[in-house]
Amino acid sequence: MSAADPVRRGRPGYDRRGLLDAAVAVFNESGYDGTSVAALAARLGLSKAALYHHFSSKEEILETALDEALDGLEGVLAATDAVRPGDRLAAVLEGAVGVLVAHLPSVTLLLRVRGNSEVERRALERRRAFDQAVTAIVRAAQEEGAVRADVDASVATRLLFGMVNSLVEWYRPSGPEGAEALARDVLAVALDGLRTR
Amino acid sequence: MSAADPVRRGRPGYDRRGLLDAAVAVFNESGYDGTSVAALAARLGLSKAALYHHFSSKEEILETALDEALDGLEGVLAATDAVRPGDRLAAVLEGAVGVLVAHLPSVTLLLRVRGNSEVERRALERRRAFDQAVTAIVRAAQEEGAVRADVDASVATRLLFGMVNSLVEWYRPSGPEGAEALARDVLAVALDGLRTR
Repeated sequence: MSAADPVRRGRPGYDRRGLLDAAVAVFNESGYDGTSVAALAARLGLSKAALYHHFSSKEEILETALDEALDGLEGVLAATDAVRPGDRLAAVLEGAVGVLVAHLPSVTLLLRVRGNSEVERRALERRRAFDQAVTAIVRAAQEEGAVRADVDASVATRLLFGMVNSLVEWYRPSGPEGAEALARDVLAVALDGLRTR
Repeated sequence: MSAADPVRRGRPGYDRRGLLDAAVAVFNESGYDGTSVAALAARLGLSKAALYHHFSSKEEILETALDEALDGLEGVLAATDAVRPGDRLAAVLEGAVGVLVAHLPSVTLLLRVRGNSEVERRALERRRAFDQAVTAIVRAAQEEGAVRADVDASVATRLLFGMVNSLVEWYRPSGPEGAEALARDVLAVALDGLRTR
C-alpha cells in the first residue's frame, strides 16, 4: 500500500477511523500547515460538514493521530517497567519498532511536528519525556554493566532512535521484511553491532 | 550557533559563500518551496538585484548547496576506493559523519529534498547511487566475513544511515561532543553494538 492509496480510495462514507487515516495520509503528503480544512475535505471527496461530523477541527485530527503515536510509545515504557535495565532497553527498542510499524502514518506525522501550535508543543513535550526516559534506561543499563559506558547515554539514545525513526523514511508494510524481522535486525545492529567476532 | 544566527546577522555585503550559507539557513527554517526570492532577499536584508549578483536563481542556490553535500559524500567513497570492504565500511561511516558535521546545513537541505524539480530529482538520484554503493560495500564486507550476514545488506545500510543522518536533527557544532568523538560513537554502536561482552 502506498501512502497515497487511502486518499485515492476517498469517497463519502468514512467512519471516524477511516477519516483519520485518510487525513493523516494527506498531512504526510502535503504538510499539515499547508493543508486547509477546505483542501482536506476536497482531497477526501467530502463536504466540510461531513468532515466536521467526525472531528471538530483540523487540529483535533492532528491531536488524535499524535496521541495514538505517543500512547503507543509510552505504552512500551509502561509495559517494560519491571524489566532490568539491559533487557528493558532491548524490549523498548523492539516495542518501538512495533509501534512504528503498526502506526507508521501517525508516527511519521509526530516526527515532523515542529511546535507550531499548543497541540504540537504538547506532543513535542511528551516526545522529549519519552527520549529522557529511554536515556535513563540506557544510563541504568550502563550502571548495571549491560551496556558499554564509553558512549554517552544521551548520544546513544539519539543514535538508537535515529536508526528506529528512519523506518518512517524507508519501511513499507508491503515490502519483503515484516515487523518481527525488522525488530530483530534493529536489535542485532544496535546491541551487537554489524562486525563479526 | 543556532540555525537562525546567519540570518539575523544578515546585512548587505555578503560574498557568494556568505549568501549561500544564509540562504540555506532560511530554506532549512522555512522550507525551500515556501520561500520566494523576494522573501529570501527580504530575510537577508538584500535587494533582489544584490541577490541575483551572486546567483542567477533560487534554484542555483539550492543546486550549489546540494552539490556541496553530495560531493562530500561521494568524495568519501572515492577516498576509500582501495580499502578492503570491512575496513572501508568503517571508513565510509566515519567519513560520512565528518561530511555531515562539516556541512550540516547543506546535508539537512539534501535530506529534505522530495524531487519537486529537475535539480531535486538529480540530487535524489545521486543520493540513491550513494546508498547503493554503500549497500554494495556492506555486501562485500559480508562476503569477506567482516560483517554479519544475517542482516540484509540494504536493511543494514538504511539502519546505519538512519543513525548517521539523524545527526541533522540533534547535533549542534557548539555542543559538548566534537566531530571525532561523534564518529567514534557512531562506529562503536554500528560496528560493535551497545551491549557489553
